[in-house]
Amino acid sequence: MTVQQKIKTLSHFINGIETAGTSGRYSEVYNPTTGEVIAQVPLATRDEVKQAIQLAKSAFPAWKRTSIGKRVEVLHRFRQLLIERQDELIEVICEESGKTKEDAKGEIVRGIESVDMAISAPQMLKGEYSVNVGGNINAFSAKSPLGVVATIAPFNFPVMVPLAITSMAVAVGNAVILKPSERVPISALYLSKLWKEAGLPDGIWTVMNGDKDAVNELLENKEIQAISFVGSTPVAEYIYQTGTKHNKCVAAFGGGKNFMIVMPDANLEQTANAFLGAAFGAASQRCMAISGAIVVGEDIEKRFTEILKEKVLKLKVGPYTDDEVDFGPVITQQSKDTIVRYIDEAITEGANLVTDGRNPKIGETSKGFYLGPTLLNNVTPNMTIFKEEVFGPARIIVGVETLQEAIDLINDHELGNGVTMFTSSGSAARKFLEEIEVGMVGVNVPIPIPVGYHNFGGWKRSKFGEGHMFGPDQARFFTKAKTISERWPDETEDTTSSFAFPSNSDVNK
Amino acid sequence: MTVQQKIKTLSHFINGIETAGTSGRYSEVYNPTTGEVIAQVPLATRDEVKQAIQLAKSAFPAWKRTSIGKRVEVLHRFRQLLIERQDELIEVICEESGKTKEDAKGEIVRGIESVDMAISAPQMLKGEYSVNVGGNINAFSAKSPLGVVATIAPFNFPVMVPLAITSMAVAVGNAVILKPSERVPISALYLSKLWKEAGLPDGIWTVMNGDKDAVNELLENKEIQAISFVGSTPVAEYIYQTGTKHNKCVAAFGGGKNFMIVMPDANLEQTANAFLGAAFGAASQRCMAISGAIVVGEDIEKRFTEILKEKVLKLKVGPYTDDEVDFGPVITQQSKDTIVRYIDEAITEGANLVTDGRNPKIGETSKGFYLGPTLLNNVTPNMTIFKEEVFGPARIIVGVETLQEAIDLINDHELGNGVTMFTSSGSAARKFLEEIEVGMVGVNVPIPIPVGYHNFGGWKRSKFGEGHMFGPDQARFFTKAKTISERWPDETEDTTSSFAFPSNSDVNK
Amino acid sequence: MTVQQKIKTLSHFINGIETAGTSGRYSEVYNPTTGEVIAQVPLATRDEVKQAIQLAKSAFPAWKRTSIGKRVEVLHRFRQLLIERQDELIEVICEESGKTKEDAKGEIVRGIESVDMAISAPQMLKGEYSVNVGGNINAFSAKSPLGVVATIAPFNFPVMVPLAITSMAVAVGNAVILKPSERVPISALYLSKLWKEAGLPDGIWTVMNGDKDAVNELLENKEIQAISFVGSTPVAEYIYQTGTKHNKCVAAFGGGKNFMIVMPDANLEQTANAFLGAAFGAASQRCMAISGAIVVGEDIEKRFTEILKEKVLKLKVGPYTDDEVDFGPVITQQSKDTIVRYIDEAITEGANLVTDGRNPKIGETSKGFYLGPTLLNNVTPNMTIFKEEVFGPARIIVGVETLQEAIDLINDHELGNGVTMFTSSGSAARKFLEEIEVGMVGVNVPIPIPVGYHNFGGWKRSKFGEGHMFGPDQARFFTKAKTISERWPDETEDTTSSFAFPSNSDVNK
Amino acid sequence: MTVQQKIKTLSHFINGIETAGTSGRYSEVYNPTTGEVIAQVPLATRDEVKQAIQLAKSAFPAWKRTSIGKRVEVLHRFRQLLIERQDELIEVICEESGKTKEDAKGEIVRGIESVDMAISAPQMLKGEYSVNVGGNINAFSAKSPLGVVATIAPFNFPVMVPLAITSMAVAVGNAVILKPSERVPISALYLSKLWKEAGLPDGIWTVMNGDKDAVNELLENKEIQAISFVGSTPVAEYIYQTGTKHNKCVAAFGGGKNFMIVMPDANLEQTANAFLGAAFGAASQRCMAISGAIVVGEDIEKRFTEILKEKVLKLKVGPYTDDEVDFGPVITQQSKDTIVRYIDEAITEGANLVTDGRNPKIGETSKGFYLGPTLLNNVTPNMTIFKEEVFGPARIIVGVETLQEAIDLINDHELGNGVTMFTSSGSAARKFLEEIEVGMVGVNVPIPIPVGYHNFGGWKRSKFGEGHMFGPDQARFFTKAKTISERWPDETEDTTSSFAFPSNSDVNK
Repeated sequence: MTVQQKIKTLSHFINGIETAGTSGRYSEVYNPTTGEVIAQVPLATRDEVKQAIQLAKSAFPAWKRTSIGKRVEVLHRFRQLLIERQDELIEVICEESGKTKEDAKGEIVRGIESVDMAISAPQMLKGEYSVNVGGNINAFSAKSPLGVVATIAPFNFPVMVPLAITSMAVAVGNAVILKPSERVPISALYLSKLWKEAGLPDGIWTVMNGDKDAVNELLENKEIQAISFVGSTPVAEYIYQTGTKHNKCVAAFGGGKNFMIVMPDANLEQTANAFLGAAFGAASQRCMAISGAIVVGEDIEKRFTEILKEKVLKLKVGPYTDDEVDFGPVITQQSKDTIVRYIDEAITEGANLVTDGRNPKIGETSKGFYLGPTLLNNVTPNMTIFKEEVFGPARIIVGVETLQEAIDLINDHELGNGVTMFTSSGSAARKFLEEIEVGMVGVNVPIPIPVGYHNFGGWKRSKFGEGHMFGPDQARFFTKAKTISERWPDETEDTTSSFAFPSNSDVNK
Repeated sequence: MTVQQKIKTLSHFINGIETAGTSGRYSEVYNPTTGEVIAQVPLATRDEVKQAIQLAKSAFPAWKRTSIGKRVEVLHRFRQLLIERQDELIEVICEESGKTKEDAKGEIVRGIESVDMAISAPQMLKGEYSVNVGGNINAFSAKSPLGVVATIAPFNFPVMVPLAITSMAVAVGNAVILKPSERVPISALYLSKLWKEAGLPDGIWTVMNGDKDAVNELLENKEIQAISFVGSTPVAEYIYQTGTKHNKCVAAFGGGKNFMIVMPDANLEQTANAFLGAAFGAASQRCMAISGAIVVGEDIEKRFTEILKEKVLKLKVGPYTDDEVDFGPVITQQSKDTIVRYIDEAITEGANLVTDGRNPKIGETSKGFYLGPTLLNNVTPNMTIFKEEVFGPARIIVGVETLQEAIDLINDHELGNGVTMFTSSGSAARKFLEEIEVGMVGVNVPIPIPVGYHNFGGWKRSKFGEGHMFGPDQARFFTKAKTISERWPDETEDTTSSFAFPSNSDVNK
Repeated sequence: MTVQQKIKTLSHFINGIETAGTSGRYSEVYNPTTGEVIAQVPLATRDEVKQAIQLAKSAFPAWKRTSIGKRVEVLHRFRQLLIERQDELIEVICEESGKTKEDAKGEIVRGIESVDMAISAPQMLKGEYSVNVGGNINAFSAKSPLGVVATIAPFNFPVMVPLAITSMAVAVGNAVILKPSERVPISALYLSKLWKEAGLPDGIWTVMNGDKDAVNELLENKEIQAISFVGSTPVAEYIYQTGTKHNKCVAAFGGGKNFMIVMPDANLEQTANAFLGAAFGAASQRCMAISGAIVVGEDIEKRFTEILKEKVLKLKVGPYTDDEVDFGPVITQQSKDTIVRYIDEAITEGANLVTDGRNPKIGETSKGFYLGPTLLNNVTPNMTIFKEEVFGPARIIVGVETLQEAIDLINDHELGNGVTMFTSSGSAARKFLEEIEVGMVGVNVPIPIPVGYHNFGGWKRSKFGEGHMFGPDQARFFTKAKTISERWPDETEDTTSSFAFPSNSDVNK
Repeated sequence: MTVQQKIKTLSHFINGIETAGTSGRYSEVYNPTTGEVIAQVPLATRDEVKQAIQLAKSAFPAWKRTSIGKRVEVLHRFRQLLIERQDELIEVICEESGKTKEDAKGEIVRGIESVDMAISAPQMLKGEYSVNVGGNINAFSAKSPLGVVATIAPFNFPVMVPLAITSMAVAVGNAVILKPSERVPISALYLSKLWKEAGLPDGIWTVMNGDKDAVNELLENKEIQAISFVGSTPVAEYIYQTGTKHNKCVAAFGGGKNFMIVMPDANLEQTANAFLGAAFGAASQRCMAISGAIVVGEDIEKRFTEILKEKVLKLKVGPYTDDEVDFGPVITQQSKDTIVRYIDEAITEGANLVTDGRNPKIGETSKGFYLGPTLLNNVTPNMTIFKEEVFGPARIIVGVETLQEAIDLINDHELGNGVTMFTSSGSAARKFLEEIEVGMVGVNVPIPIPVGYHNFGGWKRSKFGEGHMFGPDQARFFTKAKTISERWPDETEDTTSSFAFPSNSDVNK
């Protein structure tokens, strides 16, 4: 069997049907664990995207008119299918992303949290009703879906992010176009089958594979009412500016530089364990991964570095087929190269290499895109590795003298996605919670990702727009409201014209 | 006394102080009732705006740290001052806007509704708290103000719109820069005095007078976190696209073409009375004014036109000093000329002039910018006067055969601000409420503006962005939230690292 | 095989185990379709109830500490089991209650709506969080379950009511003791198996069969924190007064006399169809069944009665094994006798028998407790059949002259559970909605039962206490909240004592 | 001038008029500072109460129909009057209650917080609106006031409690009957004048002075829809049981035994200052007063006692006319005697007298009801002074070894009103917040009373019923909701009858 034979040609999922691409352009999908190409994914033309949007638009009115209860019933069945097919889905995720099985399972469970949030759509869709706001008028608000909405997903969570940015959109009555990452399209297509099996009408969930052409059509097409994006900050900014230039509502989630502040009163052993998983899990390819530690106190920094070093050296990198492995490869060879460049540059700029993951042993016998865990200390805020998001297992340690210094460092950073602090002091935690300029904050929690029924969203250049990814505010992003003032006068009532501006108060006794 | 002597030179209001402009550039402020210049308002340079923003930024942290209760107390006092100084304020509004005293009073009362909404900030600022979302983590959200925010107001409500777009912003802890319309700056400056007297700290409320230079500085300055705008659709679109290009959150409210659907079962006498005030009040210079009637049934259209004609001919136009007057002049001579051009063009395009307000008698003896009430029928959807917002007393009547036709006409219009229907049929109202693609909807209500504690906002090209002008959603626009995950482990607790993605559910039994 | 052999001896369900009764006292469970005894259910002693409560109390703390996510996961599995075992459950319901299969299925689906509401517990359990309410204090509320709660269910919905009054209680963390009706214990025991299979810990769901002894123990035992009851008004009143005498929170749902107002402008054919199903479905054994029509207009009353009569005569009564049957028997022979007495008395008092269901043909060949549909007109408010809830297929028609008269009749009735109106007039509906003193109100809806995510509860003597049966307020009934004021001062802060009452406002400038 | 001449005869306030009592029975009102009688208050007969209720009932419908905006406007004016007349009101409070001016002012400010909460009634009165819950039905809820409601207030906050239990009731549209304490009726009557001046319609706010007769009429009269009570636990229990026996909704707030846990890591100096004001302020006559300290650690207990002793000995007791005074007399001679008996009994039971306030020096020269600050340590849980609420300046110190022990002591107490902890440890606070069985909880806060926009209410025997005194839940207590299901079918629609139970879900694909 030749490589040629093994490569599967993927399709789009349009109007309930797996539809072959017509552009003749493809992108290769790798198994990062082996470095081999496993499939080719079609890259849609703008015309293909246009047609898919039209089909979604046609499907929308009937779905909108479907009662909330029946829409949610589809989500219940979809949820059940996600649980029943979990093992198959884990295999799909692992193969195209390289993450460990345990991690893939964690992502599915977390994705189901988004489905659960969407299942509460009947609560989320409630408007407000006021009796007699004046002049026998009742005032109330009625929520509607937007129409066709687009969501653009990254490679690092092949299942969780698509579920997070589409489940609520579907539940509240929209038709969704998902453009998954061209690195991990197979998971998205797998989800399509589950949606169909769950009874979602054709046209309500569409997968369009593609690159910048497809993205630009979604950003510019006037039938698209709203855009959700998850990815790096520069692309998020592009999406926000381009989508809003076409008058759309846009929620664009960018990168993070998520620090863990380690206070002198923290239990260093517990904290180091927390750091390890949160920093290196999934080969650090998470927007919520801990990027580095900011340790308060010179001595503490030394001791914490030592403890960490010892633990890092014991970490095991390898293929997801090995259950003992702590994390797998990064997504592509280019990604690996970029991360190594960050490490090299940091060393040049004066950082100290505590552990060196640039040439992991496993790499010698595998074409997989492996990197071992790299830890650098003596890192300063002017270094590139401090300033930029590094999407791979190179993590940093920064020493400071005071909590205030730690807070200032973080607040001066252009990103504000996540942050956490380890401490036993109530007042240190209070100062931190109050002053830190970051959207998702933890106290003694390794990864400060909110539970699915709370809002997910960073501050500063980590999020553009008002939307949220999980939580109750997400329902708001995918709906609009009519505010209605209703009056039913007696028809024999005598009336005159009022030329003054109407109001219902009476501030003059 | 020469004209020169009568003209007052106005200032800005920066950091609690009336501050003279330094640009040397001024715009003339007219009394539309007499056509005379009453003041000149300075047009700020970008540097002046920059400096004002810096002062606002400096004032922000202390205001943010002020407890909600104390902030709201300032609003209570401000509210009380608005009531006590009402007569003076009415005089100021009438002089620079030309509206009747009764209308000016209505606008103040309505503005106070915004202050009342802002007074409920303690409710609006509540986050959510969940106990033990898993792993002994408590998750909660804490809301914060944004920082310095800008609001840009139109001429037609010199007091109500500034209150509507700043009161909540102030209450939740922001520092606000208001750029009022250069046509009506005196009211905004008057409000400044009341804020100061109410105890608002210097720098939290700023009035920057200016033109496009000032606006562009607000749109581009990176210290401005959010922008609210109220005005015409083309400018709203510019504000939205430019503000979001600089990564800000923007709520831009544009124009309306607000129709009244008249059903065959409506009481035509009641409906005509409702139409008159809603259509011609304030010389039709309201974004919520009724722009025209869409009458269902040929006979009904004829009868309704006749009833209206008779009533329109009795309307009285004149100066606000005359209490008998129904409405006053339009804001400027240019505005008057534009409206006349719309009427002329409509006639050319085939519309029929039912009443002609182009040369009102009052105009003969006054230099004021008067127009009488103009009513046109035989209007069709392809005419300019149907398609565009006309900001003056030229209103139209369109006849259709069915309710569906009426709904379709409105849904095909690019604007979607307000709409109302007069009927006695429950099922006609239900169909209308469900199918109409407009943000603010009335049933048997002349002007479908929501009461202040419900959200204000149009659909389609009548609003850009997610924000609202009144109502609970406005508080959301002016705040951001941290989502916090907090855990306080026993320090002797034994821990290991978890490399899988964290979730708090357990879908596997 | 003798009857003796066929009778199954039922048990309780205590601490996860089917537990035989020890009192030696039993109640017979009939199949109303055949009139035969199918089982005997043990009647618990007060000591048995006490022991079950103790076991529930022991199970409570661990369930309370279980994270919301994990608790809800059990409900998801329980929901899935309800769907998978639906056919079996329908059979159980039909056999012990006599209702039709379609009706049994409707009740299960409706019961699942309660489970769905309970699945949204993570939203329902959210408290509120306020930052810096003054003096650097953060104030927030944290919700807790109550402990052991008791619910007492009626015979008419063997599955829906138990689900409605326990699902949320379980989801928010309580341990529930259910005392089902001794007429229909088998369904409740069937649910017990599903809960266990779904993974609910032992002791969290208990079924105690019994009579007044069991009820009194639940009402008086100090470990029971709250009581929900559904049944007739006299018993509801007893439960409320006795439970509150023991300082418990009680929500006691009583009976209804739910009228349908028929307006002259209603479509009489549509309305008669609506009346038929809503009035006679389930042999009228629903607290939300339509008890009678109040028809506005003498002519209308005549025509409506004629239309109804014709339709009623075509109704088919019979066993649930016949899919063509419209409704089945009533629950017991005593119940049948009571209903016949109501009809006899009404005739004596002057009512006119439109159709007579006292001796249905099916009764001749069956020992089942059958009654045909009885319709009476010329009914007046002073007749017993107007004043009291009749729990069987005897329905009344009352003629009035005006809507006001209809509203007054209903408002003067001591019960205020449900009511509906059929009309095409918006203003009639508005008047009705505003003035009617009834908790659940319909417009052009046959049975005005709210959807599961809105609150269920009558007014006047139809409900005692503040609780609700479905909807968001139910979660409130089964929880209590701590309000927490938290401050973390700098430890070096200088303090003095304040002897004045603390407040966080500052009304004095 | 004789005593006879000085004593003013007070009246009731019925239907907007000061109305003399007709029973001939009076209770004497003292000035606790001087021990002299200053007024006599009439004690109403049941007939007088009945008549007042009828007048309130007559006034209710018009107030209910008044739009929310206009109702709230009255509250705004009332609020303004409370601020303007503050000095006069302080004098009234001090004279009849004996509290210091600063404390009286604090109570007024706090009372205004209740008015502020009531001003947000437009938010609180919003129901929920759902579009198309199935079958083209819209479901929504509309809130109504209850009718005539009664509130019964204690002596210790002559203004704050009446405002707290009536402002929201009035704002949401009820007619309120207040029975103030016969010790402090003058403040309640003063409030009546302000309400009238603010424009509240006659009959909406009634003051009925009286004793058990008046209370029983309120509890039993069927026109009273709900009862709020604040006072001691035995009376609260009586009110709850009697009111609910008459099928009313009752919220009865009883006493507290509010402990301050002092952790070894607390700053003892700060903590002692906090204790002093919270424990002895207002002569300890507050249901939220700190009753005692539970100190963790034997050494800590010793040091804390020493620090406290030194500070207590410096406290100054005396008349409110002296601005230097820390607290004033208790309310009556009987009250003074009762408190002395508690101290005597504690000493007999083995408690150690740290400071003895039984014979304060000021008492020698005054007939006022003075007690100095008494502090007892070596107190154990079996002593009466530990078990019962002492409403006067006798406070206790209990030593324990562990936090768990402190929590258990409090959880085993029958009262659960308030509690606070002083600590610097995040994990101690977390354990405390989670495990403590008390309704209002503080961390490093002297008096854990929630801010006015959060709910006030204790647990266990400190509150009977579901209602709250401040906060959003209070609005719920004073309203009821209709749940409405509305449908507007096309009249030509073809229909059939459905005999199955209606539901809007579709769990079967």
